[in-house]
Parts: sequence; structure tokens; C-alpha cells
Amino acid sequence: MIFRKAQASVTETHDACGGAGLMTGFSYVRRGAGPAGSRLSMAAVNTLAPGASVGVHPHEGDEEVYLVISGSGEYIDSDGKAVPVGPGDITLTREGESHGLRNTGGSPLTFAAVIMADRA
Amino acid sequence: MIFRKAQASVTETHDACGGAGLMTGFSYVRRGAGPAGSRLSMAAVNTLAPGASVGVHPHEGDEEVYLVISGSGEYIDSDGKAVPVGPGDITLTREGESHGLRNTGGSPLTFAAVIMADRA
Repeated sequence: MIFRKAQASVTETHDACGGAGLMTGFSYVRRGAGPAGSRLSMAAVNTLAPGASVGVHPHEGDEEVYLVISGSGEYIDSDGKAVPVGPGDITLTREGESHGLRNTGGSPLTFAAVIMADRA
Repeated sequence: MIFRKAQASVTETHDACGGAGLMTGFSYVRRGAGPAGSRLSMAAVNTLAPGASVGVHPHEGDEEVYLVISGSGEYIDSDGKAVPVGPGDITLTREGESHGLRNTGGSPLTFAAVIMADRA
């Protein structure tokens, strides 16, 4: 099963999850709209403009993986601490945990986001 | 929870899953060694050399997402058909399905791979 970038929905989100600034992206699978029999609940590749952020938010009933593809920023983990992240770093936010992400660099921060839930 | 590229295991695989050639990579989470309470069963970023491939193999008891980050190739879907994939394309192989990936371009093909299973 293929989700092509060329067929993904182009998204533009302001102040994502209570964060700040502009996040553009490609939405391949809308949250909760994963294919039958799959644990994949959402798939997106998003880009935070310099200074923009995804606000800290909890995950209940699902969990999320981020993979930083390019740019640099700070990841806010479930303990509230902000730690630097860069290309190739992966984060996991399990059920009951929370997370946020902030672009602290001078260039766009692009990251893949995959949400996993119980099988649809 | 962060899995840093700098702390990932560097891997070198020949003829992956019965494919051909060299696949190098970064292994963040070994298959089946995901954190407690998580559906994340494996996380890696792999690079197929030109001409190299991951052989077609089935998924039983888990499922896998690929995200092509750079390069171009052919994805072999569960129906056995090879279709072209490039940067930003995402694939999903559900339980009971199979897949393979071949670098048909002249440059390395880098892709992220995330395996999801029932909560650990």
C-alpha cells in the first residue's frame, strides 16, 4: 500500500496544538483514518518555520513517533524538559505521555510524524 | 523518549531479506525490543546502495511503514507488482502482507522504517 507525496494533502496549520507560528505539511493519513487492520493511525511530514512550534500536548489512546529529517530544534519531552534535536533523531511519545517541538534554528525544521493506535 | 542518531547502532547488511547488495543503516530500536507499553517494535533509517535491494518478505505479527527520504527506487507491494517510489513517498505493509524495496537509481536510496506491533 502506497501513500504518495504527490497525492498527500497539503496542510497549513497555525499555532499547532497551542504552539506558535506556521507549520506546513503533507498529510498522508488523517488521524484516526488509518487503513483497516492497521495500527497506523496518522502519517504526515511537517515543516515548522523558524521560531514556530507544536505546543506540548498529551497522547491518550494513541502514541506518536517523530523523525527529524532536517533543521534543528528543541523537543519537549513528557517530563517538560526541552532537549536539542537534529536530523536523524527519533522521538517516541507513548500513551499517557506528552510532547512538543520547537524550531530553534534559522532554517525550516522538517519532521515525519507517525501515530500508532490499536488495529483499526 | 528520544532515540538519538548519535547513539543509534550503525548497521551493515548484505542481501537484506534475500535481496541483493549492501544496505547500511542506523538502528534506533531493534525489532521486538520496543519500549514497555509501546507499539513501536523497530525503528531504523537505512540506505540502499545503487542496485541494492531488500528482498520481498512477509510480515506476520507486525507491520511496517517505510518513508523514502532520498533517492529513487521500486517498491514491491504485496501483490508482487513493482512501482516507482521517490522522496516523500510512504508505504505500509500490514500483517499478512509482504514487501520489498530496490534502489533503481544512481544514488543512494535512504528510507526510514518503523515496525508496529501490539503494545509491549
